[in-house]
Amino acid sequence: MNSFGKIFRLTTFGESHGTALGGVIDGMPAGIRIDTAEIMRQLGRRRPGQSQIVTQRNENDRVELLSGIFEGVTTGTPIGFIIPNTDNRSGDYDEMRHKLRPSHADYTYMAKYGVRDHRGGGRSSARETASRVVAGAIAMQALKELGIEICAYTSAVGDICLEPDYRLYDLSLTESNDVRCPDTEKAAEMERLIKAVKSEGDTIGGVITCVVKGCPAGLGEPVAGKLHASLASAMMSINAAKGFEYGMGFEGCRYRGSEMSDQFECKGGKISTLTNHSGGIQGGISNGEDIYFRVAFKPVATLLQEVATVTVSGEATVLKARGRHDPCVVPRAVPIVEAMTAMVILDHWLLNKTAHLQ
Amino acid sequence: MNSFGKIFRLTTFGESHGTALGGVIDGMPAGIRIDTAEIMRQLGRRRPGQSQIVTQRNENDRVELLSGIFEGVTTGTPIGFIIPNTDNRSGDYDEMRHKLRPSHADYTYMAKYGVRDHRGGGRSSARETASRVVAGAIAMQALKELGIEICAYTSAVGDICLEPDYRLYDLSLTESNDVRCPDTEKAAEMERLIKAVKSEGDTIGGVITCVVKGCPAGLGEPVAGKLHASLASAMMSINAAKGFEYGMGFEGCRYRGSEMSDQFECKGGKISTLTNHSGGIQGGISNGEDIYFRVAFKPVATLLQEVATVTVSGEATVLKARGRHDPCVVPRAVPIVEAMTAMVILDHWLLNKTAHLQ
Amino acid sequence: MNSFGKIFRLTTFGESHGTALGGVIDGMPAGIRIDTAEIMRQLGRRRPGQSQIVTQRNENDRVELLSGIFEGVTTGTPIGFIIPNTDNRSGDYDEMRHKLRPSHADYTYMAKYGVRDHRGGGRSSARETASRVVAGAIAMQALKELGIEICAYTSAVGDICLEPDYRLYDLSLTESNDVRCPDTEKAAEMERLIKAVKSEGDTIGGVITCVVKGCPAGLGEPVAGKLHASLASAMMSINAAKGFEYGMGFEGCRYRGSEMSDQFECKGGKISTLTNHSGGIQGGISNGEDIYFRVAFKPVATLLQEVATVTVSGEATVLKARGRHDPCVVPRAVPIVEAMTAMVILDHWLLNKTAHLQ
Amino acid sequence: MNSFGKIFRLTTFGESHGTALGGVIDGMPAGIRIDTAEIMRQLGRRRPGQSQIVTQRNENDRVELLSGIFEGVTTGTPIGFIIPNTDNRSGDYDEMRHKLRPSHADYTYMAKYGVRDHRGGGRSSARETASRVVAGAIAMQALKELGIEICAYTSAVGDICLEPDYRLYDLSLTESNDVRCPDTEKAAEMERLIKAVKSEGDTIGGVITCVVKGCPAGLGEPVAGKLHASLASAMMSINAAKGFEYGMGFEGCRYRGSEMSDQFECKGGKISTLTNHSGGIQGGISNGEDIYFRVAFKPVATLLQEVATVTVSGEATVLKARGRHDPCVVPRAVPIVEAMTAMVILDHWLLNKTAHLQ
Repeated sequence: MNSFGKIFRLTTFGESHGTALGGVIDGMPAGIRIDTAEIMRQLGRRRPGQSQIVTQRNENDRVELLSGIFEGVTTGTPIGFIIPNTDNRSGDYDEMRHKLRPSHADYTYMAKYGVRDHRGGGRSSARETASRVVAGAIAMQALKELGIEICAYTSAVGDICLEPDYRLYDLSLTESNDVRCPDTEKAAEMERLIKAVKSEGDTIGGVITCVVKGCPAGLGEPVAGKLHASLASAMMSINAAKGFEYGMGFEGCRYRGSEMSDQFECKGGKISTLTNHSGGIQGGISNGEDIYFRVAFKPVATLLQEVATVTVSGEATVLKARGRHDPCVVPRAVPIVEAMTAMVILDHWLLNKTAHLQ
Repeated sequence: MNSFGKIFRLTTFGESHGTALGGVIDGMPAGIRIDTAEIMRQLGRRRPGQSQIVTQRNENDRVELLSGIFEGVTTGTPIGFIIPNTDNRSGDYDEMRHKLRPSHADYTYMAKYGVRDHRGGGRSSARETASRVVAGAIAMQALKELGIEICAYTSAVGDICLEPDYRLYDLSLTESNDVRCPDTEKAAEMERLIKAVKSEGDTIGGVITCVVKGCPAGLGEPVAGKLHASLASAMMSINAAKGFEYGMGFEGCRYRGSEMSDQFECKGGKISTLTNHSGGIQGGISNGEDIYFRVAFKPVATLLQEVATVTVSGEATVLKARGRHDPCVVPRAVPIVEAMTAMVILDHWLLNKTAHLQ
Repeated sequence: MNSFGKIFRLTTFGESHGTALGGVIDGMPAGIRIDTAEIMRQLGRRRPGQSQIVTQRNENDRVELLSGIFEGVTTGTPIGFIIPNTDNRSGDYDEMRHKLRPSHADYTYMAKYGVRDHRGGGRSSARETASRVVAGAIAMQALKELGIEICAYTSAVGDICLEPDYRLYDLSLTESNDVRCPDTEKAAEMERLIKAVKSEGDTIGGVITCVVKGCPAGLGEPVAGKLHASLASAMMSINAAKGFEYGMGFEGCRYRGSEMSDQFECKGGKISTLTNHSGGIQGGISNGEDIYFRVAFKPVATLLQEVATVTVSGEATVLKARGRHDPCVVPRAVPIVEAMTAMVILDHWLLNKTAHLQ
Repeated sequence: MNSFGKIFRLTTFGESHGTALGGVIDGMPAGIRIDTAEIMRQLGRRRPGQSQIVTQRNENDRVELLSGIFEGVTTGTPIGFIIPNTDNRSGDYDEMRHKLRPSHADYTYMAKYGVRDHRGGGRSSARETASRVVAGAIAMQALKELGIEICAYTSAVGDICLEPDYRLYDLSLTESNDVRCPDTEKAAEMERLIKAVKSEGDTIGGVITCVVKGCPAGLGEPVAGKLHASLASAMMSINAAKGFEYGMGFEGCRYRGSEMSDQFECKGGKISTLTNHSGGIQGGISNGEDIYFRVAFKPVATLLQEVATVTVSGEATVLKARGRHDPCVVPRAVPIVEAMTAMVILDHWLLNKTAHLQ
């Protein structure tokens, strides 16, 4: 199962050190003009080597769009694409053919399939998400026509946290620093922390907050395809994600119903809510308010330290990863969160068209 | 979209105050002996009116199994079932035909469909989850043959929280109190809090922790069907759920990779991990350790207080819900969490059979 | 797998001699007024015992709609329904517990599942199609609002065949005779043949032609969901169906391209074709002309004669079916063909809405 | 919708004159050794330019396997592949930008999407089936390990027909002639007919028969995924297919039940049937006998004659296709029929594993 979505549907393929990654986007509506520079820009945001605080691998991540776009416009037929793998230093991974990296997917792939491409994590590598960024960037171009905008940002690295309320921040500042945090002071702190952690060959986790603006009411299938369940599934499919919450989330459990209630008002014939503890979704369906949610990312498992482990046949051994790895995935995960969100929202927007004959 | 799962697949139907709820279970393996008393026992755990701290509606929730079981054994054909609605006091809901309840799905259903069954929340009512408990109870009977066991419990109500480590508790005590909390002292506190909140016509949120024991390594599809993404989607499809985390979850983001690493050991030829910060899943695939996760539930939106709101046409009005409602959904959500978990695990167990020709 | 369709999706359950049949219709658009008498009328057309030339079982086929319709109008939520089994004479089937009926599904169910409900064929009974007639009748009510009409008729019984061109017949005569054939003379011949075959305890096959009028251009997904592939799959899922062809079908293979070409014309700004050898579909997408196709039905396998066979354990034995069976399925299959067609067309109509943002 | 199958799932992309065709194969079981020369051999059988009686386009159809195979063995991860388009003479198609070819998909794509890649039929070109041949060739390598073999052959061209019973022919002779017909005399006649038709700038239809040997009993889902319904859907998704029948098909409708009954026998503990009118499938499930079916192909619509037609804006015009086209698709469709069959059988083989816990 390597497909996301029901109508707008991305199927990806590719291993970290194979010939190429890529995917097929099925269900892209016809007639949308595609800006390929914008796709490249989004890939650049996910790209390793973009700053001091991310992995120094040099994935140049050039995408080739192979079909589905004719004279710059989507034709409604599937968009196939590949991203060649160019900077492979597979030799860095020779040791991993026989040694299992702790807290990695080496052992579970072996247990499931009996065989694995050990080079750079193979299919389990976060490199796979480059394909999602391509599809998300294309989905965003449809959403733009619908007036829907998606902004994610780093809201925590280790113990350094932003306030929970995204409205306190100017999200246009997100791209002003390498951490992708709209609070530039906290961003500087986060950057220092990531560098310190990196210098120790260690890694650190963090949190990303995402906001969807301009989403109309009515998106989401009420039982098995609740909008927030689709978002949760999409976010939890990102490498290293460990938690998802929307609206007031875990924090909201501590409150009383009277404190969490979002009262309605009606202005100019439009019903809206005074507060938005619900996070823009009620009963699984968007209500027209901002949708917001948070995603937790664990510290990357690959340490540039010597660690005790076992071989595939169970013998004790010691492993020191070489390779080039992220000390903190969060800054590079920001565009991935946005991409997955874009795909979910467009998919539900299209699905929602089928709720009526008109 | 009212279907859960890919191979083991439940499709539900039914409104809170319609003739009946029910569903179809497709993909149940053949040859499993079904204990119908056990299904009824699970429904009893979800049932309103079972204790002082839950809604006093008297849903007796009798399930009729209509197909797919012959002489007590599953035949591999779909299991259709209905749960008649008997204790409907639809009159309690007349006001809601025109008034929108804050933080409920009244407005979003209206926005999406242009029409709704207002009685008791219609399709958006948590009553729909009774069908899931039936399907989960049937899935559990297959899992039992596979040696897989699922235990959920209340781990927080409001600010009263258990320790995060489930291994500190004797989970066999969960059913010893109305809150379904294995720490009997905290359970008593929680019960007092729920009663106090109820006496004020208010509600309170909480958290459920769930543990899966005996799950073999290899379940989960590595990219689009990661085991934890399926669990997240299933949990977020439960009414009032606002957050999901597995393993160290949000808390784990604050730590370093060196602290979160689960080292391997090999005993008697079996590879396992010394710690389990990962929560039994690595790269989206189970590793044979216990799977554990937490689900956040918001305080129920229906207050037995007078609240300001608007009508469907946008006029300001005041609403006082009558009906009979839960002051805290968490105790009754415990069997629902278990049921959804059972369906996800069985579905992935079956899917995993297709990874090989043998 | 007991679900048909992608957006408009029917999942059925039920065995011939269980408590009830039924199903869940998911994806029915909201806001359609439902005429339940019309559903009953369609069930009546499929009903056994309706005439001398069909089985004399008395399935009264009363459907109970349990959800998804509020005050007579669809709400967009799933429509659950059951059809209780009332005239079960399971005793008629005792012999079949151990004996395998030739050319029936007894052996294959046993081979697949290791267990089966032998009574009346269990799940393999054509009785299951009653659920499809219900769903088809509901789909038709949406199609009616779209100006789409579906007419099927018996075009062959044994060697008695109508002309291939449906335009030679007045299809309003289809219901004027028990065979459901618009050529009343041929209908009388067919009826005599069926009665003769029946008197010998034998059965006979036939062909149904179906025509869809008023279908707009644009329905059908061009590669994996071609409109005619969906129709073929739907038709071949009807019990006893052995063949499907559309447009000129098998006959057309004998011709030259120059003879089969459908030239375009343009009248009043509307492009149409002078001939319709293509059957209203080109490249898997409807072109706005009439869609027509033919479905072949084999003679029913159940003979009221003594036949040699084996038991489930492979011993030679003799079987004489009692029960009440159709000498020819075709007259009763006409409404089933229409129902399956209605579901396919509505599903594709809804899917087609997702091809554009507008 | 560009995906075939449920577990073994192929998603294709690509237009006739775009950069490349390709696809993603999801759900290929792990641990199968892949013979790439065999994939190329199958592509060669579909390839234009292979003989005098097929189109002289020179598609060299070199496939690049990009993922999912490590050191020659499938890893259970998706197999992405591309087939570059090299011999594009798009200039041949300039006229078609504005002119609609009769009996082609030009008009229906325009009606559905409002935009189309007119070059060589774009997505509607049979060139898309090259991707299916790749996936089918890979599926066959799994089926080979299971002892399942698939043989298709040309059984009719125009009025020149083989006997319906495939057992009368030595199928190893199929590849001995350009028509792919195991009756070498009829093959010579067919070849003469195709050449004659070609010399007139015309085209001719035909029929392909396909036989599956060694398929175990139990494959097929009894209601919505009947094995023959899946085969029908797969076959009808091949370009130019107009009909499908299995077992005795349309011809069998003329017979009595007593003539079509397949009696059982039991030899050495194995239950089989004396005759096989059913075509190896009963109740939608394989019974262990040979599966056989026939697929009708219309004459190709592209004529190398002058034809009257209209432009996209409805004005009368005249069109003379240049390009290089098949006078009869049947010889090249033989490997496509086999490929689609292989995918369906493997998909159902994998699905059938989920019918039991063992």
